Amino acid sequence: MINIGLIGYGYWGPNLARNFNSNPNMELKSICDFSADRLEMAGRLYPQVKLTKDTNDLFSDTNLDAIAIATPVSTHFDLAYKTLSNDKHVWVEKPMTEKIEQAKALIDLSSKKNKVLFVDHTFIYTGAVRKIKEIIENGELGDLIYYDSIRVNLGLFQQDVDVIWDLAAHDISIMDYLMPFKKFTVSATGSNYYGNGFVPKSLLTIYMENNVVGHINVSWVSPVKIRQTLIGGTSKMILYDDNNPSEKVKVYDKGVDFYETKEELYNLKIQYRVGDMYAPKLEEIEALTVGTEHFADCIINGKKPMTDGKAGLEVVKVLVASKESLRKKGAPIELDVNF
Amino acid sequence: MINIGLIGYGYWGPNLARNFNSNPNMELKSICDFSADRLEMAGRLYPQVKLTKDTNDLFSDTNLDAIAIATPVSTHFDLAYKTLSNDKHVWVEKPMTEKIEQAKALIDLSSKKNKVLFVDHTFIYTGAVRKIKEIIENGELGDLIYYDSIRVNLGLFQQDVDVIWDLAAHDISIMDYLMPFKKFTVSATGSNYYGNGFVPKSLLTIYMENNVVGHINVSWVSPVKIRQTLIGGTSKMILYDDNNPSEKVKVYDKGVDFYETKEELYNLKIQYRVGDMYAPKLEEIEALTVGTEHFADCIINGKKPMTDGKAGLEVVKVLVASKESLRKKGAPIELDVNF
Amino acid sequence: MINIGLIGYGYWGPNLARNFNSNPNMELKSICDFSADRLEMAGRLYPQVKLTKDTNDLFSDTNLDAIAIATPVSTHFDLAYKTLSNDKHVWVEKPMTEKIEQAKALIDLSSKKNKVLFVDHTFIYTGAVRKIKEIIENGELGDLIYYDSIRVNLGLFQQDVDVIWDLAAHDISIMDYLMPFKKFTVSATGSNYYGNGFVPKSLLTIYMENNVVGHINVSWVSPVKIRQTLIGGTSKMILYDDNNPSEKVKVYDKGVDFYETKEELYNLKIQYRVGDMYAPKLEEIEALTVGTEHFADCIINGKKPMTDGKAGLEVVKVLVASKESLRKKGAPIELDVNF
Amino acid sequence: MINIGLIGYGYWGPNLARNFNSNPNMELKSICDFSADRLEMAGRLYPQVKLTKDTNDLFSDTNLDAIAIATPVSTHFDLAYKTLSNDKHVWVEKPMTEKIEQAKALIDLSSKKNKVLFVDHTFIYTGAVRKIKEIIENGELGDLIYYDSIRVNLGLFQQDVDVIWDLAAHDISIMDYLMPFKKFTVSATGSNYYGNGFVPKSLLTIYMENNVVGHINVSWVSPVKIRQTLIGGTSKMILYDDNNPSEKVKVYDKGVDFYETKEELYNLKIQYRVGDMYAPKLEEIEALTVGTEHFADCIINGKKPMTDGKAGLEVVKVLVASKESLRKKGAPIELDVNF
Repeated sequence: MINIGLIGYGYWGPNLARNFNSNPNMELKSICDFSADRLEMAGRLYPQVKLTKDTNDLFSDTNLDAIAIATPVSTHFDLAYKTLSNDKHVWVEKPMTEKIEQAKALIDLSSKKNKVLFVDHTFIYTGAVRKIKEIIENGELGDLIYYDSIRVNLGLFQQDVDVIWDLAAHDISIMDYLMPFKKFTVSATGSNYYGNGFVPKSLLTIYMENNVVGHINVSWVSPVKIRQTLIGGTSKMILYDDNNPSEKVKVYDKGVDFYETKEELYNLKIQYRVGDMYAPKLEEIEALTVGTEHFADCIINGKKPMTDGKAGLEVVKVLVASKESLRKKGAPIELDVNF
Repeated sequence: MINIGLIGYGYWGPNLARNFNSNPNMELKSICDFSADRLEMAGRLYPQVKLTKDTNDLFSDTNLDAIAIATPVSTHFDLAYKTLSNDKHVWVEKPMTEKIEQAKALIDLSSKKNKVLFVDHTFIYTGAVRKIKEIIENGELGDLIYYDSIRVNLGLFQQDVDVIWDLAAHDISIMDYLMPFKKFTVSATGSNYYGNGFVPKSLLTIYMENNVVGHINVSWVSPVKIRQTLIGGTSKMILYDDNNPSEKVKVYDKGVDFYETKEELYNLKIQYRVGDMYAPKLEEIEALTVGTEHFADCIINGKKPMTDGKAGLEVVKVLVASKESLRKKGAPIELDVNF
Repeated sequence: MINIGLIGYGYWGPNLARNFNSNPNMELKSICDFSADRLEMAGRLYPQVKLTKDTNDLFSDTNLDAIAIATPVSTHFDLAYKTLSNDKHVWVEKPMTEKIEQAKALIDLSSKKNKVLFVDHTFIYTGAVRKIKEIIENGELGDLIYYDSIRVNLGLFQQDVDVIWDLAAHDISIMDYLMPFKKFTVSATGSNYYGNGFVPKSLLTIYMENNVVGHINVSWVSPVKIRQTLIGGTSKMILYDDNNPSEKVKVYDKGVDFYETKEELYNLKIQYRVGDMYAPKLEEIEALTVGTEHFADCIINGKKPMTDGKAGLEVVKVLVASKESLRKKGAPIELDVNF
Repeated sequence: MINIGLIGYGYWGPNLARNFNSNPNMELKSICDFSADRLEMAGRLYPQVKLTKDTNDLFSDTNLDAIAIATPVSTHFDLAYKTLSNDKHVWVEKPMTEKIEQAKALIDLSSKKNKVLFVDHTFIYTGAVRKIKEIIENGELGDLIYYDSIRVNLGLFQQDVDVIWDLAAHDISIMDYLMPFKKFTVSATGSNYYGNGFVPKSLLTIYMENNVVGHINVSWVSPVKIRQTLIGGTSKMILYDDNNPSEKVKVYDKGVDFYETKEELYNLKIQYRVGDMYAPKLEEIEALTVGTEHFADCIINGKKPMTDGKAGLEVVKVLVASKESLRKKGAPIELDVNF
């Protein structure tokens, strides 16, 4: 049985508490939040759990095997570092840290302490993304060409980060999982329209190996909620529409073929392929439930998480570069691929 | 009666011929194309029309009042210039020219010759865009914040330009019509994936006055056809979905309000507004029919086209800048706003 | 504080338990089910609640003020009758009873005992249906012409009733709430395809006053889930699509006008009206939460439920008639409107 | 070359003219209509065609090989009979005739005269219906269970027939093509709401062999256009959505299996199957073009049309029965299956 504590009972924390509580291999022991109201809400649902406003109560609790951190990004590094330092496994919400060096430090410490460092890139544990991964690994799409995502809605503004850090983090982690190419250059655009210092709407481009590009459109100021991702391959292409309740993933037997010809006017001849479409059946277990089981499995059986510190670092690298590019109106920022 | 000739009977030319032919104030007199096959097709539908492979047959025909040019972009300037030089009104497909200087030269010549220079920015003549213009001018949206469009599909690759020149030209002209702000800076990204020298998929950002941004996503390599434009205002927001047969324009009473507060943690307080949505009834006349009528009206009554040379120039400026930014992986290119 | 017990913890019972438990005016005291497994599941979530397999434990419990019945239809009458006989308020799932006489007997007993008889016609408490009611009462739709609903999906076959008793019961209760016309005649069709004695797919027509008709299509054997209701008025028409997450109710300014003319061929001239559409903002509270509050309010303040025994009886009358019509392949069955 | 004449240039006639004109094996020679305006419109598009108000000009024209009839239903029999009597092939719009005996008489005459009797059940020639036929014949759906269609929109009221004769005729012909079962009994409901003697909105049920049913919902008074057909089989099920531009036909690997068991409570055990969905690529040729080619092929090569007089008769039988059932509020009307 894994005894776990939770720091942060705001927007996402309650989902973690619910999943930790119902996992057969875990026991939720403590919840920490700065707000008395939030602690009271937690207490009503989990009367058996210790409630505290002091994070040290959790760090110093030798009965705790693991701590989950669901607080603002700026606090992630400090809290995760203390968790590992106190010889506990750690679950960190995305994005893992604010700075690249911090991500690196957590990776090193978890390795030294031999503790699990799990980053909650939730989408990796959805039935949809796992099915897409399977389809890509089958070779069905051919060579990958692009990842193009739009993830917009009204609301859930965060006051301490740009929208890229909130919403694009999902796409970067999905892209990293599905298309593990080296990423060379990042360009990000957007306007600080409201004058609060943060950008609520952005375009992000990631140049990768083999001329592959990732295009991401994120916004907190859209009147409608759109969650559409196109993944293009030379053989087939995918539309992943997270709003579609019954057909989230559609695989199109469509493509463009280029042939070299000796025609007078053009160097290349184009031919379209249009065939059937299919929508595979997807597993419908809540992603967080799958992630929680995987975290427990990693702790119990000494496995490496699919969303480990390395995966967290890759996301942080792109986010940090995007912040600089955003300030420079889209100027390309090169990533240090060897970091 | 306006006697009109048409140069180019490829993809778009037949639509022009059909509309010119049915316009009560026009008579379609000649069609010119390099392909004998295309001319034969034209001849079957319009047996009364002169067919030729030689553009000079049209330029030298003193009975012609106007010539329409529906050829590849690289030929627009030369053909339009000759049309005006021969004292005829000219209809040019978008984008008007390849270079900024060319656009300027056409504007000057049409002014000097006192002939109509009409650029076929078709979308300006749709019921949808005209209704959106009306809603914006009513002040219903409040201050405009952003224009965000996705215009993707499979196919109709053009071999001589990037996809931005083909598809984003529509959005730039719509944006210019709806949000006539000064445009300062352009950033464009995308990959020449197929190695044919042209980019089939791009993101484009246009920084304008007042922190307003335009975001445009265009692609020839999407498995599905998407034509969605979001227009954000401080009071209301619009979703314009050109694929929706019956509710193309939806106006959402949704928004985000920011208040300055004295709270400890944040400078600004956020509040969402969510009210009713409505979809106004739209006129359902074919855009090209409206455009054709407007062109005839301009010729007969000496009016200035809504899509005149100046409008054409604004689009060319952004396209030219986007081409440079694309080569530099998103580097911001400043526009000369006084040109 | 209302002490409440629950009989039946199968498909719907857990939703009742959750809502009773979180209602500030209620205390969930006992749960009864025949299955030990179901009781164990209930016990894990509500450790403070008494669990029993014997319904008499609830009837004889003098501390209970009310009992909710979420069991198969055939048991509703008996359990509800015992509840009222034991001087407790009763919440019955829909349809209220199997027979018309039973419905009548419950109404009489609740009146005699002066106890609340609440029938769980859940949809009446949705934001969508309440908004439609408001629009109809405003006179916006003009005279009502028809109610036309399709409510189909795969699954949740019930083994003891036809699909009409399960799914059409929703529509009949909605129709009764929105269009309180006298209902004269019922015709129902469908096939006992699987040979198990019950009809999994049906059409139902209800002839009402003023030539108004109700058309209902229900099925447990559809590959897709459809929940669409059209409500036609002489002035406007409504599309209520329960699957649409953000625009469930759309009000169309559309209609058909008939004029008498003196034309040779036709007596009536037809003219279509097509104007704007709007989608009103809806309240987004869970219907069962609203229903629970209303039940508590009725008990505490002696109010009559919106979904009282009379409403339950109207639904039962149509269901009983539809059963007979179904056996006779659509033969019209007249309803006793004075019952 | 087949010389063809056309009687009726109203709503549908222009589509016939356009297709006859462009068919390489046909020459459109004459157009007949009672309206001078309509004839003038035809003349502008087809200057080479003879125009007349007198149908006898066509019947007596010995150069004509075939006549197409696109007039109100009540005139079909008389005009088609005269066409065949004058030794010409005949194309009749649906429904073929008003009465069963008339349909029979046309079949007999066409047989006696050895001329093609083609009924324009257009949907049979769509890529979608042809693909569904192929899927059914492959055995992919297993045993067929039901056909369930909704075909509603605002408008195109016909003044001389109920909506069933206009819109349900499509579904009956599709059903007859896809599910060629004997049809035993018909039940139809609907209200003559507008008092003009005709029913603008109806439900129709057709009981067939093997407990298979057809359910059809048609309306001229719906605010939205819906064209959805569900076809249920024991192995798979189809959704055919004619409004979906790119995925009209979806095949669901979904079903319900019933097993006999020895359980105490139930005789049958239910199990759902849910697998992948696929949308086959469809041919995209206009249905009328395919039908026109087929008509020409039948004339030239002496083939029997897929939509021959027998197919026309099957539709008329159901329509005639539905009219009687409609008057009797859904009372089941038995069909004479041996007619």
